[in-house]
Parts: sequence; structure tokens; C-alpha cells
Amino acid sequence: MQRRLRVRICLFSLIVSPLLAAAARADEGMWLLDDLPKELLEERYGFVPSDEWAEHVMLSSVRFSSGGSASFVSSNGLVLTNHHVAADTLHKLSTPENNYYENGFLARSLDGELKAPDLELNQLVSIKDVTDEINAAVTDAMDANEAYKARQAAMAGVEKQSLDETGLRSDVVTLYGGAKYHLYRYKKYTDVRLVWAPEASAAFFGGDADNFEYPRYCLDVTLLRVYEDGKPAQIEHFLEWSDAGADDGELVFVSGNPANTQRITTTAALKHLRDDYLPYYLNYLARMEVALQQFTKESPEHYRRGKDDLFGVQNSRKAVTGMVQGLQTPEFIERKEAAERSLRSKLAADPELRHFDEAWEKIAEVEKKKVALIGLIPDFRNRYYEIAKHLVLMAAEDQKPSGDRLREYRESNRESLELELFSAAPVYDDLETAKLATQLALFVERRGGDDPLVVKILGGKSPRERAAELISESNLNKVEVRRQLAAGGEEAIAASDDPLIKLFREIEPDFRSLREEQDEWDELKRQGYAQIDDAKLALEGTSGYPDATFTLRLGFGVVKGYVEDGETIPPWTTIGGAFRHEAAHEAEEPWKLPKSWHKARQHVDESPPLNFVSTVDIIGGNSGSPVINQAAEVVGVIFDSNLQGLTASYFYDDEVARAVSVHSSGIREAIRTMYGAPELAEQLGR
Amino acid sequence: MQRRLRVRICLFSLIVSPLLAAAARADEGMWLLDDLPKELLEERYGFVPSDEWAEHVMLSSVRFSSGGSASFVSSNGLVLTNHHVAADTLHKLSTPENNYYENGFLARSLDGELKAPDLELNQLVSIKDVTDEINAAVTDAMDANEAYKARQAAMAGVEKQSLDETGLRSDVVTLYGGAKYHLYRYKKYTDVRLVWAPEASAAFFGGDADNFEYPRYCLDVTLLRVYEDGKPAQIEHFLEWSDAGADDGELVFVSGNPANTQRITTTAALKHLRDDYLPYYLNYLARMEVALQQFTKESPEHYRRGKDDLFGVQNSRKAVTGMVQGLQTPEFIERKEAAERSLRSKLAADPELRHFDEAWEKIAEVEKKKVALIGLIPDFRNRYYEIAKHLVLMAAEDQKPSGDRLREYRESNRESLELELFSAAPVYDDLETAKLATQLALFVERRGGDDPLVVKILGGKSPRERAAELISESNLNKVEVRRQLAAGGEEAIAASDDPLIKLFREIEPDFRSLREEQDEWDELKRQGYAQIDDAKLALEGTSGYPDATFTLRLGFGVVKGYVEDGETIPPWTTIGGAFRHEAAHEAEEPWKLPKSWHKARQHVDESPPLNFVSTVDIIGGNSGSPVINQAAEVVGVIFDSNLQGLTASYFYDDEVARAVSVHSSGIREAIRTMYGAPELAEQLGR
Repeated sequence: MQRRLRVRICLFSLIVSPLLAAAARADEGMWLLDDLPKELLEERYGFVPSDEWAEHVMLSSVRFSSGGSASFVSSNGLVLTNHHVAADTLHKLSTPENNYYENGFLARSLDGELKAPDLELNQLVSIKDVTDEINAAVTDAMDANEAYKARQAAMAGVEKQSLDETGLRSDVVTLYGGAKYHLYRYKKYTDVRLVWAPEASAAFFGGDADNFEYPRYCLDVTLLRVYEDGKPAQIEHFLEWSDAGADDGELVFVSGNPANTQRITTTAALKHLRDDYLPYYLNYLARMEVALQQFTKESPEHYRRGKDDLFGVQNSRKAVTGMVQGLQTPEFIERKEAAERSLRSKLAADPELRHFDEAWEKIAEVEKKKVALIGLIPDFRNRYYEIAKHLVLMAAEDQKPSGDRLREYRESNRESLELELFSAAPVYDDLETAKLATQLALFVERRGGDDPLVVKILGGKSPRERAAELISESNLNKVEVRRQLAAGGEEAIAASDDPLIKLFREIEPDFRSLREEQDEWDELKRQGYAQIDDAKLALEGTSGYPDATFTLRLGFGVVKGYVEDGETIPPWTTIGGAFRHEAAHEAEEPWKLPKSWHKARQHVDESPPLNFVSTVDIIGGNSGSPVINQAAEVVGVIFDSNLQGLTASYFYDDEVARAVSVHSSGIREAIRTMYGAPELAEQLGR
Repeated sequence: MQRRLRVRICLFSLIVSPLLAAAARADEGMWLLDDLPKELLEERYGFVPSDEWAEHVMLSSVRFSSGGSASFVSSNGLVLTNHHVAADTLHKLSTPENNYYENGFLARSLDGELKAPDLELNQLVSIKDVTDEINAAVTDAMDANEAYKARQAAMAGVEKQSLDETGLRSDVVTLYGGAKYHLYRYKKYTDVRLVWAPEASAAFFGGDADNFEYPRYCLDVTLLRVYEDGKPAQIEHFLEWSDAGADDGELVFVSGNPANTQRITTTAALKHLRDDYLPYYLNYLARMEVALQQFTKESPEHYRRGKDDLFGVQNSRKAVTGMVQGLQTPEFIERKEAAERSLRSKLAADPELRHFDEAWEKIAEVEKKKVALIGLIPDFRNRYYEIAKHLVLMAAEDQKPSGDRLREYRESNRESLELELFSAAPVYDDLETAKLATQLALFVERRGGDDPLVVKILGGKSPRERAAELISESNLNKVEVRRQLAAGGEEAIAASDDPLIKLFREIEPDFRSLREEQDEWDELKRQGYAQIDDAKLALEGTSGYPDATFTLRLGFGVVKGYVEDGETIPPWTTIGGAFRHEAAHEAEEPWKLPKSWHKARQHVDESPPLNFVSTVDIIGGNSGSPVINQAAEVVGVIFDSNLQGLTASYFYDDEVARAVSVHSSGIREAIRTMYGAPELAEQLGR
């Protein structure tokens, strides 16, 4: 799982579609909450989730709109998630004097709870199939570009209407690679406050070195609380708490928002991932990691400012390294190729289905074109640059009807966009400058120093000088400046002499044409994958589950250890094990438990499980998902997968791949004893 | 300067040629010892180096065949160099119990001096112009490939004859891009022993963070001693010592072996460097840096084993980042382009010289082809792999006459090759496996997973599995196995079932054909640059100095501070300044001085200068070079350049670019007081 995974952070995106049903194994699947595999569950585990059970779980589940999952765990609004999912907020609330990310936080009363500057939590309240409505907008006479626009407009129309009718966040979700469209309505919570967080050294014990490893000993949890009208929200559907947790071999479920799987991906597309997209991304990450390390080494304050970015990059690097490793294993591609060959030969043998075969060629053709775009779009993950981009594009897009706009500027997304755009979270000029310098240098390397767009962007300076100039002369770090520019629309943008606004205005035409190109290719891929999906449906008559789309899914599996290099890894670790793991590393960073743990050691119960593994099918975005038992009680919180699970984007494995969770029992004992907050511990599940 | 620069480590190589004389500035130049710019020195500084002076300096200078410079500083064989130049040896002499690299070393008597396992030091004893002999071997009727082979054979012939006649290491050096060939004869010292080294924390105080920065406070020095017949060698020409050092503004010289400059490089070639070679290299370095960090984090012993590689990679990364930054500055390329345009238009205006213009086109054409080869040659910087490669190629090459062989397998190089091949230096399987896994993964990324050569190399495994398999099953870590294979020749190689030998045998044809392609293009480039050089000679009637070739050169300049961001940086720092620099960083790593310094603080003299800067023109390979005054006394040892000096490969600057040295006075005071070795301090210069 990617720590602090944000869906939009992906430098590449692949269209999603259902899994090859024939290859489905054991506990595989990220199932839609309104279409659970009841027969499968009954057959394998003798348990049938009722509709009420499913609805209760759905309503108790929470999504971080910035990426990540969570759950309601009390009637008075407590939200349980990972420390690393809340890290962005912890970071934004921290100052040089009060570093909550590093040192933890505890509000002894409601008054002491700290409001997150820009956090949006979503509770999925209903799912509606709108496939017919969307498809009606597209006719056979349309080419790819027209079809894309028509479909986008239809989706925007449905979203707008739903928003107007219900006031709820309304997203049309593309499932099965375009074979289905569902309208998801969410209740939004934007007043979210920090209640408790452990120290980073307890949450991320073992650091980058232990990341994706198992056995683990991380208290990777944080408690937030949602408010309405300035008071703790009254929550009807929340999860109860199981102190016992789950037994070895017991059936458990994970309800969360897996972001992105590509299990249907054609072999040709996988090879582009292996040889083009992921290598580029790995180089990008390695370069950013080195740059952020340089930055954070400069002083303790630099370390505080840059640590969150650094950890995010390190986490992605470790995850992507695992993915590339899987794809570079010849057997892996051979297995995929064999399954694809078998499917295609079945299609070829059937005169009715033969025409579906062209989908593979179509996708291969588009992929070849898309690959040429890697790294060429000036879309830097940089706070100043993103603000400028949003302000310039929003002003122009607002001149159009909502349905014709770029997706992120539609009315249905306006509130979320403004939350991000007008966030009062601190912006650190030195950090953003260091990042932008590296991002610009990489962009110049990718396009070449003589490229006209590069010449425009650099304005005669070196990347480092240019980054320093742009950021030191910009006022976009001030929220009121952003608000004024947004309110002033196109006129204000045209009149602005902020260097970043001016820069983005200058490159706007280039940006738009590249974006359009990319959108068109994505539409062509979508059509190709929808065709493959249709072919499989026609051939196998089964649907299975759709690839992940950062929407709510239910996974299932059992608590289970595994064998690695001949050694049996038990399913659990304990609180006592954390102390022993620290001692084994001579308490050297990053294996140094916080003072709170050492102080509590004499009276803490060392026996409760701290982390455990299960066979549940998860992926980035599932971080913070509750792990529940058949009674829908919390038995844990997902926070990671082991190294062997990193290829889960492309295939599920239950031999050695495992989901890693914090145990419900360890969480309660830690809050009670290490953090001296028995009254908070008592609220869990009540 | 690149720490531990090894010439062969370069992933790219550019042919060398003289500088644009018109652009020569101030104290620019890396001058041949037999062709010093006497008029220039007299005119500017009123000092004329006599032939005796030049010969004395030449004979007092020492080259590390593995990359780096040094000098004789006593009659009984003491050799002064940088700690980072000796780091490879310190590392190879260290064990888990005695970590000399980290903790330093002092031999209280000759008996205690430790023999380096595979170090070769060279003393240049004569220079002879052999241009006519080499050129006579090439006729107009030959094509590039034939010309290349004929020239190589002629060079090998000259070398062989010289070796037979004198017993001295004999290298024909290509100067001025092929306009001149000189025979350099070296006395070799292969019994070299460690006398004294400070702790890494004193030598590399400030670590990667301070690297290439100034002011600096590094005691980056180490003392070795050369032996002959088991006794300290009697040295006739050694440098005397100046405790006073050089005054502000005083003329100083640097006698050392700059490895590689490309000041003549055409603009087209520079753009390939900027957009292709260096970005690839930076990505390679960032990926290796991240991999080595992961490795060194695993345990203190891993840290000990991998630190030297890690520092080398970090140093290169910082250096190359600076180079790319220079090249990505539009003004830099514009200046180069303007000079080139001016030269070419002068040529075009002269009917006699017009034909020279084709050289630029020729070079551009070759560069375009060479770029396509980047990262595609399976030539991994990995101890096991290199041993296998040498053994397989040597066995085959030995069947040919020496002059027809690949350069490194000629008889003239055999002793050096064997020193490397049969070195008893420890080989760490875990470190080599981690490196090879990353190197293989990068190779697969570069060529694509379906590439036939990749398929051969991986043998059905993932890069990580393959690296582990190859190294765990190989016996090439054993010196006697290497000796047996080398002695057994082609038959032994064919019969070997060592997996790395088998692998290299399998890919040998691919390797050879890629290498041949590269050699041919290099020859074409050589011809192109020789033409440009001829054109400039014809046009300007001046020769200047040739680009650096890792052979002895003399640079000159003055001790001088500079202005950075409006702040005046004084030329010196002091021993006391090191303590204050430590305090300013709260003695956090890497700003933690060793115990020896703290223990000595109460009686050490804090006033002696520790580091200083000068305008001398240096580059990687100059590390360890003595800085001398007009009386040829040591006033310092070169160990770095500042960040602004990192573009020295392409142009010299005396505004802010500076060479950084350890000061003679600080060295003597440290040895005497911090390291309690007054008797050793007394030997310096005697």
C-alpha cells in the first residue's frame, strides 16, 4: 500500500476493467457494496452478508477525498484511520513549536481538538446505476473525441442534477472499463478535528527500512472527529469494537477505497508499464528522494518541513520498485500472455465474437502513442504551481457550461476544489523551491534544453534560478490573494503580475493541447477495455468485480501467516515484540520507540497483538480501512501490505502476499496505557 | 572534483582536444609539464619556471592508477594524498573489528605500516613525442575502422618496445584530440603501505551536505609510504614543506592528473550531454544512491561495507547535478554557440580552410548514433561481474598479438590488470548482490524486458533473484580461483561452470559487437576533433594546452576569496573554525568532529589555516594534487572544488569557481597535536 496515496499523484493512469474471471483465486476481489459475492462467501465460509449488514458497513465507512480510507467508530463522530493517512493534516497543523506529526497529539477535551485546514471526508450514502443514461448520449456516428465529450457531458449532467436535488457530493463512476456507470452520492464532512495521534516513531516504527516488511510493529493509527454545526456529529452507523480481534484462520472483511488496480491490462500495456511508465516514475522518485534528503538534512526545521514529502516519495519508490520487480520477472508476463492468448483464441474460434479481437490492437496502438508523452506535460506536484494552474484554468473553464469543462472544474467538484485551493495550510517557500528546481530540471532533461516549451518555462534561467525567482516573487502562498484572483475571474487573472500566474497563462495553450491529447487516448483505451469486457462477458457469462476506482469496496479473507525463505511467519506480533524489535536494533533510528512507550513499559500489558496479516485483497487507497469480523466489529485497521503484495495492481496472490493491519486490541491498550487516555479508549465502538 | 574519481567509472567519454584559445581567461589551463606557458607566467606573475624546476615537480608528483593524484613529501617514501583518494585502500584494509576508514590509523613504526592489497602508484619519469611514428601507420586509403585499428596497433607497438627496453610502464597518450601522441613512461610502485589516516569524520567533516560547498573544514589527507625490496624507497625528488603556506594573492601551482575535460566539445555534443548522457547518468546515480542507502541502513556492518560506494555515488551525483545545472543554463550554451559560430564563419571565409567545417557535421552525426547506445552495453560496475568479464575477454584476447587486442588486455597493461584482478581485497557478497540487482534492473528498464540480450542475462529470473543466484553460486571471490582460471586460458574458461563466467561467455559476442561499434564512433569523433584542432591551429597559430587526459599537468593561479550572494568569502578557514562549524550544527551528523579533536582541543593551536581556495584550473583526478609555491614547497593539497566550479569540464571561470585545498599548516598541526605523532609531522618535507 502506498502511504498517503493520493489518486491524483499517479504519473500514469490505466483504465480499469474487470479481472479475468478464469484466473480468480481464493480470497481475491474488491467487491461492490451493492453486488457482494454472496454465493462465493456462503460456499467457502458459510457466511451470507445480509443487505442490512452491507448497508451498515457502507454507511460506517469513510473516505479521505485526498486519498485513503477510514471508519466511524463511535456515535459521537470518532473517525479511525492511519497515522500516515492523517499525516498530511498532522503536518499542516504543526509549527516549529508544536510538531504534532513528530511528537503526537492528545485532546483532553472537545475544546482541545484541532480543526484540519482542508480535510474533506466522504460517507457513501447511495449507489445508483446510470449506465443507460450515459450511454444514450453517445451514438455510433461519433468519433473518439466526440464520444468522449458527449460522455463527459452526460456524466456532468447527471452529477449536476443529483447535486441540485440532494445537495450531496455526486460522482459518476466508470466501472468495468466503461461497461457500467454508477452514480455515487456522498455526504461530505469538512469540519474535521484532530483528537489523538501517536508519535511518528510509534506509528512509523522501523521507518523506510521496515516499510512493506513483515513482521511489523507499527501503531499506525490516528483518531479524528467529524463536526456538524460546530458540534460533534451524531453518527447513526458506526462500527463496534472487538477487543479480542480475529482468530487465526477467521474470516475478516476490509471495507475501504482501493484506488487503482489494472488486472485486466493487456500484455502489451503491461510491457509499456514495465519498460516505460514505471522506469520513468522510478527515476522521478529517486531524483525527488535524493533532492528531499538534501533538503531535510540542512537543519532540524528543514527536516520538519520536508519529512512528510520525503516519506511519501520513499514509500512510493519502495512500492514501485516492488511492482517493477514483479513485471521484470519473466514468469509473470508469461502467465499473463498465456491467459490472454487463450482468451483471444477462444474469441477467434467464434465467428460471432471474432470482431472483439481488434480491441487488443487498438489498445496497443494507443499505448504506443501515450508512451511518447511520458514526462512531457508540465504538471508539477508543487503547491505554488498547482495553485497557479487551478486559478488560470478555473477562470477560463468557468466561462463554459459545467458539462463542457475539464473534469476537475465542474460545479460538482467546486467545493472540494476550493477546499484545496483556499487551504490555510502553511506553504514553505524553501521546500517548494527545492522541489520545483528538481521538477523543472527533470522536465528540461525530458524535453531537451532547446524545446520551445522549455525555453518558455525557463525564461533564460537555469531550473534552480528559475524556481527561486518564481517562488520568491509570488504571492500565491497568501490565501486572500488566491481568493481575490478566484473571485476576479478571467479579468483578474489577465491583470495579475504574479510570476506563476503569468507563467501558466503563457503555457496554457500547450498544457491544454497536451491534456486534450491525453484525454482522447484515454477515451480510446476506455473503449478498447470496454470491448474486452464485453467479449469476456459474452464468452464466460460472468462479471466478477470491477478494477479498483477509489470507491468503496469490500474485500474478504482470513487471518493467516505465511512461509518465507523456509521460515514460518506467524500472523501476529505483540506490543512486547515491539520492545524486542527495538532492542535487536540497539534502539538506533528508525528503531527507536518514543518515550511514552518506555515510560509505560512497567505497567503496560505486553501480550496484546499489535499487528497482524490476512489474505484480504487490498491496494493503495485501502490505508486506514477498518478490518471487521462477521459481526461488523472492528478487529483492526489496514496500514500496509508486505513486499510480496506489491504486485497486487496486476494480480492477486494468497501464497505469500498479505495485507498488514494494526490490531484492535493493541490500539485500545496503547491509547489506554501509553497515551494515558482511558476515557478515549472507552469511547471506541460506543 | 569527483571524490575517488576513477577514469574508467565514466559512463560516457568524450574525446579531448585543445581549448578555444580565444576564450582563454586569466589563470586557465592544465599545462603539459614539458610545455609550460613560460611567457604567460612571466608576463602575469614575473616568474619563469626553469626546466629543472619543472622536472623536479614532475618527478615529485605521483599518480594513483585507480584515479587521483599525490606527491612524494619525504626522502624515505612518504606519499601525501587525500583521505578520499586513499579511501578505497582504507576500505580494503578494514575489517569489522578494525575499521580504519572510519576510525583512522597511525603506524607508530615501520613495522606497523599496512600493505595495500592492490594499489599501484605511478611516477612520471619521461615524456617523448611519438606523433610521427603513430601517424605513419595510418594512410589516406583507410576507412575509420581500419585507421582506428592501425593507430591502436602502432600505439601498442611503441608501448611494447618501450616496456621491453626500459621495464617502465609505457603509455601512449593522445593529446589535442589526436594532433599529438606522446609516450609517457612511469616508474611503478606496487608495494604501498598505509602510514596515517584521520577519522572519516575529520576527513569528510560535513559529509555529503558540505561536499562542494565553501567555507569548508576538512582534514582530507592521508599518508602512505612506497617500498622497494621490502624497505622504504629512497626518494630523490620530493617536495619540501612550507608551514607558512601561501599568502592571499600569492601565485601557486597544482601538479596533478586531471582526468577529463571537454572544453573543445562542439555545441551539438554539449547538447547531447545536457539532454541525454548526463540525465541518464544522474538517474543511474540516484537509483544507485537509493539502493546503497537501503543497504547501508540494514546494520552497522552493512554500513561499514557499503559506505565507500555510497559516498562515491553521492559525490558523483552532486558533481553531475552541478554540471547539468550549468548546461541547462541557457546563457551557457549561448556563449558556446556564439564562439563556435564565430570560429566557423572565419573558416567559411577562407577558401583554404572551408573544408574544415565538415568536422562539426561529422561529430554531430556520430553523436546522434552514440546516444542511441546509452545504457545498452552490459558493462556493470560490479566486482564479480568485472572479474568474470576480464577473465573471459583476457583468455580470448591473449590469442592475438598484443597490438590487436582490446586496449586493456595488451601486454603493456598486464601488470596493472593483474593487480586489479588478483587483488585480495575483501568482496562482500551482500553488497555486490544489492548493487548487481539494481544494475540489472536498470539494464532491463533500458533495453526492455523482451530484449534478447536481457532474456539471456536474466535466464528466466527477476533481476533480484538473478543477482542473488549468480553471486551466491560463484567462486570468483576467491583469488586462487581467479588465478587458476587466468592461468588455464581459453580451455579453463570453456570448462568453468562458474555462473558468472558462463553468463559472460554467453553474452561475449553481444558485448564485443557493442564495444566495437563504440570504438569506431570514438575514432570518428577523434578524427573530427583533430580536424577542428587543425583548423584552429591554422587560423589562430596557437596551441594552448590540450584537454585533460588523466596525465600529469601543471595548473597555476592565486590564493583568492570570492563573493557569493553579496557576501565575501575569505580564502581561508582555520582549525578553530572547524569547532565553531560543529557547534553551529549542534554536533549532529555529519557535523560531528572525532574524539581526537575534542581531546586535543585544550592544547591545539586553533589559528592555523585548515582549508583555502585558489583560482587554479582543476577537475576530477586532481584530488590529492600538491599545491606548491614558487620554491616548489607544499602549501596545500587539493581535495575539492566549490559548487560553482563543477562546470569546469566545459569551461574555466575565475569569478567564483575555486579549487579547495587542505592547508599545509593545518595538516602539520593536526598530525602533531590531534593525532599525537610529532615525529611523523617532522618527516614532512625532509
